[in-house]
Amino acid sequence: MNHPPGEAKTAGPEDGRRFSPADLVAYSCAVLERLDVPADDARQVAECLVKAELRGVDSHGMIRLPVYTKRIQAKVVKARPSIAVESRYPSVALVDGDNGLGPAVGARAMEEAIRLAESCGIGFVGVRHSNHFGAAAFYVEKAIARNCIGCAISNAPPNMAAFGGRERFLGTNPLAVGIPAGQERPLLFDASSSVVARGKIIVAAQRSLPIPEGWAIDPEGVPTTDAPAALAGAVLPFGGPKGSAISFIIDILCGVLTGASFALRLNTLENLGAVQNLGQVFAAYRTDLFLPADEFARRMDEILRMLKNTPPARGVERVLAPGELEFDMEDRLRREGILLTEEVTRQLVDLGNEVRVELRPAGRSVTHED
Amino acid sequence: MNHPPGEAKTAGPEDGRRFSPADLVAYSCAVLERLDVPADDARQVAECLVKAELRGVDSHGMIRLPVYTKRIQAKVVKARPSIAVESRYPSVALVDGDNGLGPAVGARAMEEAIRLAESCGIGFVGVRHSNHFGAAAFYVEKAIARNCIGCAISNAPPNMAAFGGRERFLGTNPLAVGIPAGQERPLLFDASSSVVARGKIIVAAQRSLPIPEGWAIDPEGVPTTDAPAALAGAVLPFGGPKGSAISFIIDILCGVLTGASFALRLNTLENLGAVQNLGQVFAAYRTDLFLPADEFARRMDEILRMLKNTPPARGVERVLAPGELEFDMEDRLRREGILLTEEVTRQLVDLGNEVRVELRPAGRSVTHED
Repeated sequence: MNHPPGEAKTAGPEDGRRFSPADLVAYSCAVLERLDVPADDARQVAECLVKAELRGVDSHGMIRLPVYTKRIQAKVVKARPSIAVESRYPSVALVDGDNGLGPAVGARAMEEAIRLAESCGIGFVGVRHSNHFGAAAFYVEKAIARNCIGCAISNAPPNMAAFGGRERFLGTNPLAVGIPAGQERPLLFDASSSVVARGKIIVAAQRSLPIPEGWAIDPEGVPTTDAPAALAGAVLPFGGPKGSAISFIIDILCGVLTGASFALRLNTLENLGAVQNLGQVFAAYRTDLFLPADEFARRMDEILRMLKNTPPARGVERVLAPGELEFDMEDRLRREGILLTEEVTRQLVDLGNEVRVELRPAGRSVTHED
Repeated sequence: MNHPPGEAKTAGPEDGRRFSPADLVAYSCAVLERLDVPADDARQVAECLVKAELRGVDSHGMIRLPVYTKRIQAKVVKARPSIAVESRYPSVALVDGDNGLGPAVGARAMEEAIRLAESCGIGFVGVRHSNHFGAAAFYVEKAIARNCIGCAISNAPPNMAAFGGRERFLGTNPLAVGIPAGQERPLLFDASSSVVARGKIIVAAQRSLPIPEGWAIDPEGVPTTDAPAALAGAVLPFGGPKGSAISFIIDILCGVLTGASFALRLNTLENLGAVQNLGQVFAAYRTDLFLPADEFARRMDEILRMLKNTPPARGVERVLAPGELEFDMEDRLRREGILLTEEVTRQLVDLGNEVRVELRPAGRSVTHED
């Protein structure tokens, strides 16, 4: 637990501009509202994108706003969906997202899961007709904030080979779990089901560097360390057959069970010609299901301290609990501001010009000397 | 999904004896009843052990009966527990296993989860004061048989290093998920959270063979291919930081949440001086939570066929769905009989002699020529 489990971390000093989280939220809200997204929905989307930036998972941050807006403009995502919540059983609800923006639908569904947990101990909410929902951590943090255990999963279009296969079949279907503690920070696990984000292979290819064995296969299904061959082939699931099965099960729960689309039928975010109909599942659990809440919190502190006190392997500074690195990153970026690359900044300025929203303050320019 | 995800498969032809599943169940029941285990509980334990054999997971099969009986004789497991089921919420129950045999407690808990799912859509059952529950697949097959999705997890004593650590901290905490289909066989995933069963490293050490990198670390926490160094060190979790986090989360749900023991406090099965107080969670979900059951079944068939039709990587015969290999194994062993090694057979004969139960028929001797 010493790598960040998230994807595509901000990698050290880099040229770019720093922005306050509040300014990025305000900018994103303004852009989305220009496209007729209701203010509450726009706010969920904006906070989801900025949360990913704060956690250092820039692959799920502001870089996604342009494609979200393009999908609305192309009418493959609805700006004003009629999101419907249907009670199915005391602890179970179905959310029909009506093809709204993923974070707007997801926030509503997680809210329902928490409401069910508060009244019935647990809440299990299936979602259909949804879209790319950004960083799954965003939703489980909502559960943690209400002192619930939270879980969020989503399916995603084919991007990885299944174990033993050579063509893209599985999505990098994310799994997030959040568990509140007492005095310790919560546990927050958020991971895709791939060994590594495809973005890291793109970077290696750009720099003509080899990639480690085990990350990807070439188009014949043969393991490769050649980044271009990997890009032509497929990323691999984490953990061999076990991770492949977990990714497949996520697709079944999110897609097959809920009535959403699944597997080879799923369209990519970038294909502006078709809706996605992604499926998601959100679950919440009271921490006092079996013990008083304060005893649960005390026991959580105890197991987290046990983990953090386990002697590190040679060359490792200390053993980390899931989410620790991201909480540290968030603390730092709330102080220092969020660093966006010049490229992302330019895209956002262009987007702002298009819909007459200023990205302000323009941000302090940051160079390697900073 | 072309390796069996289970542990320590029966590896091809081997000297030993073949037994019918019914004879092994009858023998195990008789042995346990001699130790004052009630007939119904004995039957669950016997069927759990024989199910593991049938799936080819002999590490969780008959080889475990002697230590189960030793724990009863040493009075660290109760032959006649008062298993208590307490309703906590409409879909939630707590089972106190009263230190009974794991499969007896687990079968009762999964039965409760299915009952809750049938009446309330989903069932979530926490278990405390339990013991080693054998193969997790045994429980999720009970859910599948009632057309429910089933999930079973357990914590286990420290056996693996956490990611970044060098000492044993995590159990090889298993996760099983079973999902019924229509005309296709169900999906049945059952995996420990280690890269590989420790038993495979023991075999390599016995044969003076190296082990693949990534399986284990030495006592300093350095990755090793030396089997004896690995045995002195620790097995690694599957999937690096992601599998390590998943294993840790299983311990939190099974141990911290339920009120059972957890992490470094857990005693091994082999330590006859202390109770285990393992924790488990069983969950069941109706397949018609969001769609009619027959539509779910049809969609499951569709995704399973999509997976099995994905083109195989070079050198791979075909892509397998989770559980396919084990179902094939079970079909074969139900025809041919279960092969027990001479060593296991001898242990069972000795155990039978001790409690005056005959292991019969003695089984047909099998040699390499078979």
